[in-house]
Amino acid sequence: MFRLHHTAGTFTAVNPIQAVRWAPDCHAVRIIDQTALPERFIERDLRSLDDVCTAISSMAVRGAPAIGIAGALGLVASLGAYGDQTLDQLRARVAVHARRIVSTRPTAANLAWAVNAVAAEAGGPVASAADALQAMRDKAGALLADDIAMCRRIGELGEPLLADGARVLTHCNAGALATTGIGTALAPVYVAAEHGRRVSVLACETRPLLQGARLTAWELSRAGVPVRVITDGAAAGAMRDGRVDLVIVGADRIAANGDVANKIGTYALALASRHHGIPFYVAAPTSTFDVTIANGAAIPIEQRGRDEVARVAGRAIVPNDVPVDNPAFDVTPAELVTAIVSDRGIHHPPYRFDP
Amino acid sequence: MFRLHHTAGTFTAVNPIQAVRWAPDCHAVRIIDQTALPERFIERDLRSLDDVCTAISSMAVRGAPAIGIAGALGLVASLGAYGDQTLDQLRARVAVHARRIVSTRPTAANLAWAVNAVAAEAGGPVASAADALQAMRDKAGALLADDIAMCRRIGELGEPLLADGARVLTHCNAGALATTGIGTALAPVYVAAEHGRRVSVLACETRPLLQGARLTAWELSRAGVPVRVITDGAAAGAMRDGRVDLVIVGADRIAANGDVANKIGTYALALASRHHGIPFYVAAPTSTFDVTIANGAAIPIEQRGRDEVARVAGRAIVPNDVPVDNPAFDVTPAELVTAIVSDRGIHHPPYRFDP
Repeated sequence: MFRLHHTAGTFTAVNPIQAVRWAPDCHAVRIIDQTALPERFIERDLRSLDDVCTAISSMAVRGAPAIGIAGALGLVASLGAYGDQTLDQLRARVAVHARRIVSTRPTAANLAWAVNAVAAEAGGPVASAADALQAMRDKAGALLADDIAMCRRIGELGEPLLADGARVLTHCNAGALATTGIGTALAPVYVAAEHGRRVSVLACETRPLLQGARLTAWELSRAGVPVRVITDGAAAGAMRDGRVDLVIVGADRIAANGDVANKIGTYALALASRHHGIPFYVAAPTSTFDVTIANGAAIPIEQRGRDEVARVAGRAIVPNDVPVDNPAFDVTPAELVTAIVSDRGIHHPPYRFDP
Repeated sequence: MFRLHHTAGTFTAVNPIQAVRWAPDCHAVRIIDQTALPERFIERDLRSLDDVCTAISSMAVRGAPAIGIAGALGLVASLGAYGDQTLDQLRARVAVHARRIVSTRPTAANLAWAVNAVAAEAGGPVASAADALQAMRDKAGALLADDIAMCRRIGELGEPLLADGARVLTHCNAGALATTGIGTALAPVYVAAEHGRRVSVLACETRPLLQGARLTAWELSRAGVPVRVITDGAAAGAMRDGRVDLVIVGADRIAANGDVANKIGTYALALASRHHGIPFYVAAPTSTFDVTIANGAAIPIEQRGRDEVARVAGRAIVPNDVPVDNPAFDVTPAELVTAIVSDRGIHHPPYRFDP
């Protein structure tokens, strides 16, 4: 991700930021603490198993791709002290650490997949604990590189969707902070801006956790891409006023028929887009496609805690005796999705994703 | 407004609350301080001109009908010390106080109308300052009674829209706290509940000022009507899940063709209602109809301050360098409105409101 300065009609890339990466000594994972944004920009180095687990469970690092890579790199970092043990001793530690990291976000498929892929290297044809650690470090690094490339590919494939002057509406944060690269939904925006195209973003604040207001606004502003924040309820009115050319959102899971589970509020945006004849795009890596699920009705919707809605900055905004519904996601039916941009290409309806 | 206890299939009315009323000595206006809800229930007695103006400008009292009555009663209360002056002296004070109260919310048509109606009594055929004050007190009391009756009438007219077991979705607060009676959008809910019908409400929290979470949830819960709070973005998903039978919202202004200006986020609810075949009702007093405006395009939309969106409970949730759009209202076109319930009857499309 790059800071883009608009100079004489072109953007130049400076000041890269990355949500998850190796610390310079390669014995720690360096993350941007997303719980402190936008008030403070804090990078933290995760060295111990506790560091890694706390960062993931507290959502200091969030976004499925970013969590996966943080877990993969974090597993390696947390084993740094064990390089001079026997191979068997190391393998036992790997199993313990991997299990604990995966358990921090049990529903995040990316996390288990990435951590287990790195852990498996310790079971391969290695001669020593040090060799095993090196193989794991290489694998984690490869996953990191893959994630960066995935984002770039989505950005390049999606870029042609953005005409010069395009005004993009997005929801939640599917940007650089949710990945280790330039994001998914925001990747086409960054690539278009790099190429000197004038693009701007309307960011829905995304209650309850306000990832749009806090994170999408922060990273786009930092990169020099014009961004404005609106409440979620203001999006339909902005469309009616002719202020939105297209919508791009990320996805948490995509069923075989193209139904899309994404952050709560996405479905309302898809309905409003359809009503106003505005293209509604989903951008997500292939790993988001769950071909074992026929359609959205079978996607489990996580219900999260009351306090995310009922308390803001420590203040009660809902009476104590009133219940709250807090579904984390909703399902947008495939027929409302104009196209899906993945790292493999642009998929048009009717969608049929095969195993 | 009554606290309703569900007992053996019927509701019984106990524990009335009223957003604006006379204090027992009739020399002060007693209001519920809505800035303290839901954390604290505080009633305040407004006696001085400063008391009245501060309560209105700080939104301790809010909602167009409630503001109008608070201004009307407040004008009388603020003049209590002037009953032994000459009639000319009193009339001069009336003009000064009325002008200052009206200026606290210059765009609230109800406020100017009610305050000026009370002030006009001092110019009538009265023999003394004391007589003038009595005439003003009588007029303010009549306006209060009219407001209570208006709410009741909307409730009775709207009640048949709610079948037994009806699940109502509403937005913002158009309830008892916004009026001096049982509200507008919530009036049919209260009447149905009084009549022993089982009704429940899904309250959209209504960003940015959270009147749904803070106020609608509070007053319904206090009245014993089952209520749950959701984020604004969760409403469309709740409709898709079959959890909403009808929508009722209030209105800030209704154009001659039936286009409705109401709290930001209303339009998105109307679109989602239409998509799911759910009736979308607007409940508002006749005073809300602005027949001088042909359609919604001519309704001015108030843009409010950045901090309502960008700061919550003192914490910055938007980066300082990122702009915010904060339109207070949006316009729902008449073709999305199933019917409008006013104190004069139920209006069906095509709407044509004449002067």
